[in-house]
Amino acid sequence: MPTTDLSFPSREAHRAWLMSQAALPRGFRVGTSRFEFVPVEVPKPSKMALTIIALDQPTSRFAAMFTKNSFPGAPILVGRKRLAEPTLGAVIINNKISNVCAPDGVAASETVCAATATALGLTPGQILPSSTGVIGWSLPVAAMVGAVPAAVTTLQAGSILPAAEGICTTDLYPKIRRVDLAGGSIVGIAKGAGMIEPNLATMLVYILTDLDVSREDLRTALKDAVDASFNAMSIDSDTSTSDTIVALSSAAVPCPDLAAFRAGLAQVCRDLTEDVVRNGEGVHHVLRVRVTGAPTAGNARSIGKSIVNSPLFQCAIAGNDPNVGRLIAAIGKHAGAEGIALDPARTRLTMGGIEIFAGGAFRLDPVKEKALIAHMKAAELYASVPPADGLTFRPPVSWPPHERSVEITVELGMGPGEALVLGADRTHEYISENADYRS
Amino acid sequence: MPTTDLSFPSREAHRAWLMSQAALPRGFRVGTSRFEFVPVEVPKPSKMALTIIALDQPTSRFAAMFTKNSFPGAPILVGRKRLAEPTLGAVIINNKISNVCAPDGVAASETVCAATATALGLTPGQILPSSTGVIGWSLPVAAMVGAVPAAVTTLQAGSILPAAEGICTTDLYPKIRRVDLAGGSIVGIAKGAGMIEPNLATMLVYILTDLDVSREDLRTALKDAVDASFNAMSIDSDTSTSDTIVALSSAAVPCPDLAAFRAGLAQVCRDLTEDVVRNGEGVHHVLRVRVTGAPTAGNARSIGKSIVNSPLFQCAIAGNDPNVGRLIAAIGKHAGAEGIALDPARTRLTMGGIEIFAGGAFRLDPVKEKALIAHMKAAELYASVPPADGLTFRPPVSWPPHERSVEITVELGMGPGEALVLGADRTHEYISENADYRS
Repeated sequence: MPTTDLSFPSREAHRAWLMSQAALPRGFRVGTSRFEFVPVEVPKPSKMALTIIALDQPTSRFAAMFTKNSFPGAPILVGRKRLAEPTLGAVIINNKISNVCAPDGVAASETVCAATATALGLTPGQILPSSTGVIGWSLPVAAMVGAVPAAVTTLQAGSILPAAEGICTTDLYPKIRRVDLAGGSIVGIAKGAGMIEPNLATMLVYILTDLDVSREDLRTALKDAVDASFNAMSIDSDTSTSDTIVALSSAAVPCPDLAAFRAGLAQVCRDLTEDVVRNGEGVHHVLRVRVTGAPTAGNARSIGKSIVNSPLFQCAIAGNDPNVGRLIAAIGKHAGAEGIALDPARTRLTMGGIEIFAGGAFRLDPVKEKALIAHMKAAELYASVPPADGLTFRPPVSWPPHERSVEITVELGMGPGEALVLGADRTHEYISENADYRS
Repeated sequence: MPTTDLSFPSREAHRAWLMSQAALPRGFRVGTSRFEFVPVEVPKPSKMALTIIALDQPTSRFAAMFTKNSFPGAPILVGRKRLAEPTLGAVIINNKISNVCAPDGVAASETVCAATATALGLTPGQILPSSTGVIGWSLPVAAMVGAVPAAVTTLQAGSILPAAEGICTTDLYPKIRRVDLAGGSIVGIAKGAGMIEPNLATMLVYILTDLDVSREDLRTALKDAVDASFNAMSIDSDTSTSDTIVALSSAAVPCPDLAAFRAGLAQVCRDLTEDVVRNGEGVHHVLRVRVTGAPTAGNARSIGKSIVNSPLFQCAIAGNDPNVGRLIAAIGKHAGAEGIALDPARTRLTMGGIEIFAGGAFRLDPVKEKALIAHMKAAELYASVPPADGLTFRPPVSWPPHERSVEITVELGMGPGEALVLGADRTHEYISENADYRS
């Protein structure tokens, strides 16, 4: 899956690369405003960023996909209605509070849209809202409405970086991916670090293009790209209530080749997916699991997900411990529970290219154990360091040092189903991040 | 679910209580032998305990249930065959290596059975084997065969405690539960601390009774008891390859009331289930989730499991953080993915008896937030302490200080389905335990 294989010796090197990717497609401007507010539920000052992605002209060419979670946030309910609107002119995004199942959440979201519309000379129906952060709390509507004009004054057409930064919550770094194509470009940004097993789309993703593709083509291309990228990864199996992916075309550049556009969009989605996994909360290792020979493609994906979501396997990887028995346990628990026909005798497993299971039994010895440890250590992004307070682990790096992964193949020999699934290990930093996220 | 509500100020107090529960039913003896061995795969000395549970006379009255994992261990394959044998005379159990998908694993298991049969004057078909520990490694058959006579010499009819201790791996303490009934008793022991989301039975459970119930009645009663206990809990969603539950009756005491026996067996299973959760690896809080009003009982159980298996919710509980938004996210991700009809407007949630969600929205305020924190703190078994090496967390207690839980109710208002599901939080101690379990 990786379409790049980069490494960054420092945060500055990573930032320089991000800036090289950040040029906005024609016809878009982005701006951000940051301000203090006090949540009603826990009255303690907090900071919010309000980000606007605006088109120079409203467009009929837009697509969006949303979470399948049964308790969707108010912005999801509003966003689904927007899909039927003739045109969209801007997206307004806030972090810190996700506006999910908060009293009068839809009204709050619409009020923010209306204020944004007024400031941009649009109608409220032309504004798509997104929110991410704590579930259950109420949006600070008055403070947000007050911050809209400041965000509008920062709108600029040069770089998407301010938006990529503005949508972050617990992300260590902003995520930007681009494809340049036929004189135009496709540029995407993503926020996502926890509550990540998308079911239709990941947390918050915005993809902008100036290439002129029809609304119908854009929606089909987005669905296909998402299916093979965001829907095939999991950091913690926790499908968010706010997952949203939006694609907008300013139609400023003719698109001579729809197939090339679809391929470019798919690449941007795959690259952003990998970015989201690599920047998952507390991630030390990215897992890349290729499952082949499953009865169906759906079985292949669900078996891959069972592996990357297995807490015990995730912990083993975190410790560079080649406890590959847990790999078998994770495959078998899922297949057994779901009634997926498997035959241990036909199953073959590799890690880092090393055969570890074949002919119904493990093929392990001390030499292989050492090679497996070496493969995991080479894929490690960083190691835990003792925390200052003895209890609260923080990542010692705030950029991705490299793009290597722990490579696992699962050959089942049962049928034509295959899938590539991305996931991550489970570490002390994840626990520290999430045991008291709101404080 | 709790049929007891005990607290123990010290390890000694807990041990004294265990000993008060440990009297063996008539007709059974248990013995254990411990010895050093060197695994082939990672040549480093390790210690194994070999435990024998023997009947004075072989019995036709036995029942067993095994994991549904598609990669079952060799002892499971052997045990399934034993179900068709006319009588069973003993169970032989080892820890440290689970004999799962190891080359020639079934032959290894049968060799250990044969040695045990010889020492006890039985046939190999009268011996049921169990193994728990690392997956994929080979049993040290010669060392085990050599240790059998020593285990046989320790057989005694007084206390089940040596067996309860012998089957442990990462367990902090042995687990024993009993019901006295009609002049006889039902006494169960359990091993289980990680890789726990049983699918038919939990890791290793042995239930002994002298009450005379037929093989058929025993098998039916066991299945019903397991369904409402071990199959309704999860520590880490990782269904083991070795889950086994065995029930043996010596038939030494007439059973005048089958219904009372079934109720007693169900109680022993429920109590052991709660013990297994409370002694789960790194568990700080037991979660008790009662789901009502689901379309079906299966939906109720799967929604409860989605809550207790949600990494983000588990982490919030670990931190005594009333981030109840994650509760909604966990319910909704599962219902959305599985197509279970839910209506947020009909959903009502409580934690610690406090209403947190009703009428489609959260009902939160600063006073409730404080009460939720107090409820979680009261249910905490222990708090993390800074580790000596800065990285490796160890539980500061090795006994269960109390039997309180975080109490959650989920009323869905959709149908008659209900379930009680047990689970646990996710902590630094779990990560430390599992990031390098084998070393």
